[in-house]
Amino acid sequence: MSDAYYLRLTDHLRELLSGPEAFEEGRLPAERTLAERFRTTRVTLRQALAQLEGEGLIHRSNRRGWFVSPARLDYDPTRDAGFNDYVRAQGRRPRTEVLHTDTRPHRPAAEALGLPVDCSFHHIRRRRFVDDRAVLAESLWVVPARAPDLLQGDFAANSLWGELRSRWGLTLAHRSLRLYSEALAEREAAELGVAPGTAGLSVRRAIFDAQRRPVEYDEEHWLHDALCITVELENKA
Amino acid sequence: MSDAYYLRLTDHLRELLSGPEAFEEGRLPAERTLAERFRTTRVTLRQALAQLEGEGLIHRSNRRGWFVSPARLDYDPTRDAGFNDYVRAQGRRPRTEVLHTDTRPHRPAAEALGLPVDCSFHHIRRRRFVDDRAVLAESLWVVPARAPDLLQGDFAANSLWGELRSRWGLTLAHRSLRLYSEALAEREAAELGVAPGTAGLSVRRAIFDAQRRPVEYDEEHWLHDALCITVELENKA
Repeated sequence: MSDAYYLRLTDHLRELLSGPEAFEEGRLPAERTLAERFRTTRVTLRQALAQLEGEGLIHRSNRRGWFVSPARLDYDPTRDAGFNDYVRAQGRRPRTEVLHTDTRPHRPAAEALGLPVDCSFHHIRRRRFVDDRAVLAESLWVVPARAPDLLQGDFAANSLWGELRSRWGLTLAHRSLRLYSEALAEREAAELGVAPGTAGLSVRRAIFDAQRRPVEYDEEHWLHDALCITVELENKA
Repeated sequence: MSDAYYLRLTDHLRELLSGPEAFEEGRLPAERTLAERFRTTRVTLRQALAQLEGEGLIHRSNRRGWFVSPARLDYDPTRDAGFNDYVRAQGRRPRTEVLHTDTRPHRPAAEALGLPVDCSFHHIRRRRFVDDRAVLAESLWVVPARAPDLLQGDFAANSLWGELRSRWGLTLAHRSLRLYSEALAEREAAELGVAPGTAGLSVRRAIFDAQRRPVEYDEEHWLHDALCITVELENKA
């Protein structure tokens, strides 16, 4: 009964959010005003707002009401563009901080790349920003034999794969991707400035070169409302 | 300082979970026992357990302690296998319930398929189970001109694309996928038997036939710890 109405109200609000009639400074009117405008109850209105919050279209700010969320970043993992390129291509501003580097074993990397579990990797921990919002915490694990003095590079300014290509002639040839939803653990949450348990998206990549030699393993933790994975697929006839 | 120790402890626990030394009936020993066994404090142990919970490897059951979570279902959206096929191929048991059918407009479907916003779709709402756990709530929106008397079919037993192929000769030729993390809204959460706001994974698919005619739009809501998207990519040399 009221179920159908709340779904129609959600569609209607979604439409307003995507349309040119932008809310002033990205802020929604007060709940009371919205409820009057749509001739509905606060209860039904809140169901609709919670639905849109779940979709990442709006977010609540303490005591200040509801705001339109910045658009998700589109990311197509089947293409080779680096973070800086695809962020800029969408009219957004990328920035990267290196948090930590070291060289040590890491079992998930070894397993994903088919290497002995005790082998060491060059490790780079980074935090990446879109329009000054921290959206991604990532660990890169590179096989030292492929890029011996890797950690002397500047990975705040440079793309890892740009370096691997230009300094060691490596080609990104085969990639195996795993994507799943996660609840952000303490470390990632702290790096992204959110509460532990906040919803996130994990992207893991094992990368091999043209000779099928293991090169790199990535662990990415994205804020749940920052990213949308998009893929276009054509079937062979 | 203790940061490094908690990460090593996490790796160690992760290794035990993936190894053949299974915990009895999928249940972890009490936190006190684990803390003694690893010669660590409860605080550090809990950091490690929370990390593994975030990765979806273990879950907490009220008052009964920690349990090993069932393995995530692997799903490769670049292949054409249906739900029943890929669930069975992984030694798991699929089941489907039809919750609701109707015919009505749906703006996100119309926009994704490039149709006028007021056009109607045949709509099927389903809940899908793996080993009797509800893991997926989905809405299928089919263009009525492609499959006029669609809603007379049995979509608890049959695959939608099996029907579209055999009854209307349609081929799934071009797919456009969007994947993102979400917080499950009230309706999806109720259908999956979890609290609203629980982390989920949304998969949306716009599907066109070999003549590039719009056929179907899918909205899938997965429980966050039920699914892992896997993709293998080869670059052209």
